[in-house]
Amino acid sequence: MPVTPDQQAEIDALRSQPRPTLRAVSEGAERHLYTAHPVLDHGFVRLVDYMGDDAAICQAARVSYGRGTKSVQNDEGLIRYLMRHWHSTPFEMCEIKLHVKLPVFVARQWIRHRTANVNEYSARYSILDREFYIPDPSQLAAQSTINNQGRGQALTPDESARVLEILKGDAAQTYDHYAEMISEEGPDGAAKQGLARELARMNLPANIYTQWYWKVDLHNLFHFLRLRADAHAQYEIRVYADAICEIVKDWVPAAYGAFADYRLGGAVLSAKGLECLKRMLAGEAVTQETSGMSKGEWREFEGVLG
Amino acid sequence: MPVTPDQQAEIDALRSQPRPTLRAVSEGAERHLYTAHPVLDHGFVRLVDYMGDDAAICQAARVSYGRGTKSVQNDEGLIRYLMRHWHSTPFEMCEIKLHVKLPVFVARQWIRHRTANVNEYSARYSILDREFYIPDPSQLAAQSTINNQGRGQALTPDESARVLEILKGDAAQTYDHYAEMISEEGPDGAAKQGLARELARMNLPANIYTQWYWKVDLHNLFHFLRLRADAHAQYEIRVYADAICEIVKDWVPAAYGAFADYRLGGAVLSAKGLECLKRMLAGEAVTQETSGMSKGEWREFEGVLG
Amino acid sequence: MPVTPDQQAEIDALRSQPRPTLRAVSEGAERHLYTAHPVLDHGFVRLVDYMGDDAAICQAARVSYGRGTKSVQNDEGLIRYLMRHWHSTPFEMCEIKLHVKLPVFVARQWIRHRTANVNEYSARYSILDREFYIPDPSQLAAQSTINNQGRGQALTPDESARVLEILKGDAAQTYDHYAEMISEEGPDGAAKQGLARELARMNLPANIYTQWYWKVDLHNLFHFLRLRADAHAQYEIRVYADAICEIVKDWVPAAYGAFADYRLGGAVLSAKGLECLKRMLAGEAVTQETSGMSKGEWREFEGVLG
Amino acid sequence: MPVTPDQQAEIDALRSQPRPTLRAVSEGAERHLYTAHPVLDHGFVRLVDYMGDDAAICQAARVSYGRGTKSVQNDEGLIRYLMRHWHSTPFEMCEIKLHVKLPVFVARQWIRHRTANVNEYSARYSILDREFYIPDPSQLAAQSTINNQGRGQALTPDESARVLEILKGDAAQTYDHYAEMISEEGPDGAAKQGLARELARMNLPANIYTQWYWKVDLHNLFHFLRLRADAHAQYEIRVYADAICEIVKDWVPAAYGAFADYRLGGAVLSAKGLECLKRMLAGEAVTQETSGMSKGEWREFEGVLG
Repeated sequence: MPVTPDQQAEIDALRSQPRPTLRAVSEGAERHLYTAHPVLDHGFVRLVDYMGDDAAICQAARVSYGRGTKSVQNDEGLIRYLMRHWHSTPFEMCEIKLHVKLPVFVARQWIRHRTANVNEYSARYSILDREFYIPDPSQLAAQSTINNQGRGQALTPDESARVLEILKGDAAQTYDHYAEMISEEGPDGAAKQGLARELARMNLPANIYTQWYWKVDLHNLFHFLRLRADAHAQYEIRVYADAICEIVKDWVPAAYGAFADYRLGGAVLSAKGLECLKRMLAGEAVTQETSGMSKGEWREFEGVLG
Repeated sequence: MPVTPDQQAEIDALRSQPRPTLRAVSEGAERHLYTAHPVLDHGFVRLVDYMGDDAAICQAARVSYGRGTKSVQNDEGLIRYLMRHWHSTPFEMCEIKLHVKLPVFVARQWIRHRTANVNEYSARYSILDREFYIPDPSQLAAQSTINNQGRGQALTPDESARVLEILKGDAAQTYDHYAEMISEEGPDGAAKQGLARELARMNLPANIYTQWYWKVDLHNLFHFLRLRADAHAQYEIRVYADAICEIVKDWVPAAYGAFADYRLGGAVLSAKGLECLKRMLAGEAVTQETSGMSKGEWREFEGVLG
Repeated sequence: MPVTPDQQAEIDALRSQPRPTLRAVSEGAERHLYTAHPVLDHGFVRLVDYMGDDAAICQAARVSYGRGTKSVQNDEGLIRYLMRHWHSTPFEMCEIKLHVKLPVFVARQWIRHRTANVNEYSARYSILDREFYIPDPSQLAAQSTINNQGRGQALTPDESARVLEILKGDAAQTYDHYAEMISEEGPDGAAKQGLARELARMNLPANIYTQWYWKVDLHNLFHFLRLRADAHAQYEIRVYADAICEIVKDWVPAAYGAFADYRLGGAVLSAKGLECLKRMLAGEAVTQETSGMSKGEWREFEGVLG
Repeated sequence: MPVTPDQQAEIDALRSQPRPTLRAVSEGAERHLYTAHPVLDHGFVRLVDYMGDDAAICQAARVSYGRGTKSVQNDEGLIRYLMRHWHSTPFEMCEIKLHVKLPVFVARQWIRHRTANVNEYSARYSILDREFYIPDPSQLAAQSTINNQGRGQALTPDESARVLEILKGDAAQTYDHYAEMISEEGPDGAAKQGLARELARMNLPANIYTQWYWKVDLHNLFHFLRLRADAHAQYEIRVYADAICEIVKDWVPAAYGAFADYRLGGAVLSAKGLECLKRMLAGEAVTQETSGMSKGEWREFEGVLG
């Protein structure tokens, strides 16, 4: 259960108190505020704050005093132009703050995106909760034989069962030991010192959940989403990226639309790929052998052309 | 006059339309929104948007679901603790967006603070306005004889008058020539091509005004303010920093208070300085000769101790 | 003349003293070290230092103890794979330091690339040289009628002549006035105070030359080069990007080759563009009207397909 | 044992092949190159590459063509001036690349310093080694009663023994299970699929060792060292910071000296602290009650004054 009744009460309290503001307001974003969107078995993504909307992107691009144009069409056209021509700074003028609960091994991938602000729950200061990511059996798969860093065929039911038995057993045992080490009460009820939290945490495996506040501008968020909402990203981070896409779509619909068209749904062709394409459009039957590409390049080129 | 009637009408329109939001609202910041605070002869600083408030700093530090504590005292104590112990990430959870009009030579210093988002008025796309910074006579001073990169004694009235004559004359002439070069109408009224704006702008001096949207998080803003609201900063950028300080003070009063106490009003002592201080507190009369410091270090050390 | 005899002597001295090192050495980069490659009328690009080579990219990608593979082919294959799949961190493991002399208006575009280290010649501390960028007549053009921020048709000889007359005249006059303002000697030879340099510089136009040390990692350099060695970039910055490309090509030939194929020579297609392409490859005659694209998008799409 | 014979052979090979270069060479850094300095029980820090030396800092600050001054004293004076007045950009002109082996929970603290380049060993692609950090008994301590995020009194021998038993046992068991899950051979010797590495790694605890290449400029490295070579930093990251200090001291002795004096050995006083100090120097006996400081502030103030 991702959110306790107390936490839900705090969320409800925040959602019940609209206040007047003169700032840009996105109705779509307001609907998401504070609500925890579940991800994986115990994780979530919550929108905590946002700055700006589609119009704010245009206002910044125009360095204008007011809202600039009143026309939504004009704004959308400008946003698409900016996205197409890699004008990134207007998109940086929007900012989003998320509260995310996620397994540690996902957090370790996520943090590699450096152009963001992060405040993580401190396991030096606080005690971590007993919550571990245990994959759904449908997600258990063997090492891929094509992609050296991905997963391939689904595991047999027997292997899956054994994996889940291990993950659950080790999570329970390491957490029990963590709790025992930091406890100031011995098994016999007598007082003991209890190991410092900054040390005890080292016994916890990478599927334990952590939490953080993560704040990022829209340009860098799009960069994150392009890499992590992609089929090559590990499933466990992709579902977070997908959940964030749903929020962004409602927050800045025009910018998200341009992103979906020009980045997520688009493709990059190499100079060799472009050359082949021109030959194909001129009627030539190009093969890997005559393409000048390596096998890997050709396979990916075919993938782009469907 | 920093803002035209049309621009003022746009500002007034934005200020007249409060809308409900569920986000954190800072009453102090709302009062500033969109208003142009004049700086120098034609410049200004305008608050265009903000994210977060004092409570949001604490909420992020605690990675909490709601507002966390209801006690303003607790929040202030936490904020002071975070500032004192260089916990910078909670301050990064607040963000501010400013519209600034400033001379180009000030913009060139300002932009060296890289951890910010900037959208500048494009002189490739648009025509720059005929507005130049002409210093107040009280600001005209000779090169400092102590600080190799500052100003010292005030200029004589005669020298001042000559400087102002030059600055005004060259501004007028270079702008006239700029306008002539880009004009698509010749002096005789006949059509001409007009030089591309991206080229014509090169004739304009560094005291012409430009404008930008500048967005930065509170931690990096404090870093900017510590360096630029400082007595060693050039006057023409310091007045912008001072104007921003007034806005920040109203937006996040507790965080600004901690910043003023621990950074702006504080001082850094070297290991040698600390050593001398201990000797002085023990009753010894320390001089530059017995301090182990260079003359420059000693002068600055004496400056700190008043 | 970009480099004085004294400066050339300093460069020659540095080039005459090879010293032993255990670090990775790039023969191609060594050939460029310290030499000033002329750009525009008075500018240059000089390689001052570099870290890493093609093998260092692979060594970092493999987190290896030694050089990793001895095979240059393997390294090149890995580098192409990394570039194709947007693995940017191994390219960040190479670093380059350049000394650049460039007009101020070019410096203002350049500095918008924030992920770099910069040390600029200080006009608060030092006196700027009397060197201005005066375009070659062949570069003088009218505002583009298609691209709102570029240049189009060449100016007529008459208009060109007038532009050059203005640029030269105003450069000379504003510099004379700059020199007069800071001078500590009056026109009559009597002592005067002289205006502080930090103020006097405001009279100088944007085509005056400045200098800086610029240090950047290879990933961010490629990003800079993709945007600035592009046909849409302003000519005056593109020639610097082109000069840097020549250095990088010799420094890390495999990485540069992958960059040239996958980024510089490649193209990005939108989701709509991909859809059209598939229809065209299937034999359909697609037009702008049936493409679902705007006129601007269609024009750019046709541009990609040649 | 931190380095295998094969790895040592690779290191020796690299150390045996000096090559000529025209770049700045630091003799002190050359002595460290490639050698693994042991840290904790299985970790290390190795200098893999460096850019620049003390003279390069001055050369950049002066934006000079050659080495600038020949005088080491002048250079040291300039470096101390730059450090004292927070001129950070010249220090950014030096860069260092380290290969580090470290426990995952240390890596998670370390990575929060975002202004650096990182290439970590990929547990999606490769199999992690069976190496865990097991603290020396002398390092096992209880949660601090003063500092909520540190450690206090040493554990009793009994509690220590139990902690070590847990850490060793869980490390062994979770690694055995990790190996079993990814194995393509069942316990009976029959072929099985083997769980994908990107999933199996989630069973491994935070004291397992990882490795990365870490590249950072000198300014940002000093910032890291100030926070992590500090008494408040967790012991397990502080020993890495200490090891890096030893390398930096030899690489750029003047810059390190200025850093040690002005940052590491110095102290920051608040406005209130400065005020108290002036009263104390004037002979007044100031107490916490009359200081205007909180108890925590006063305790830290007394700490600074010894």
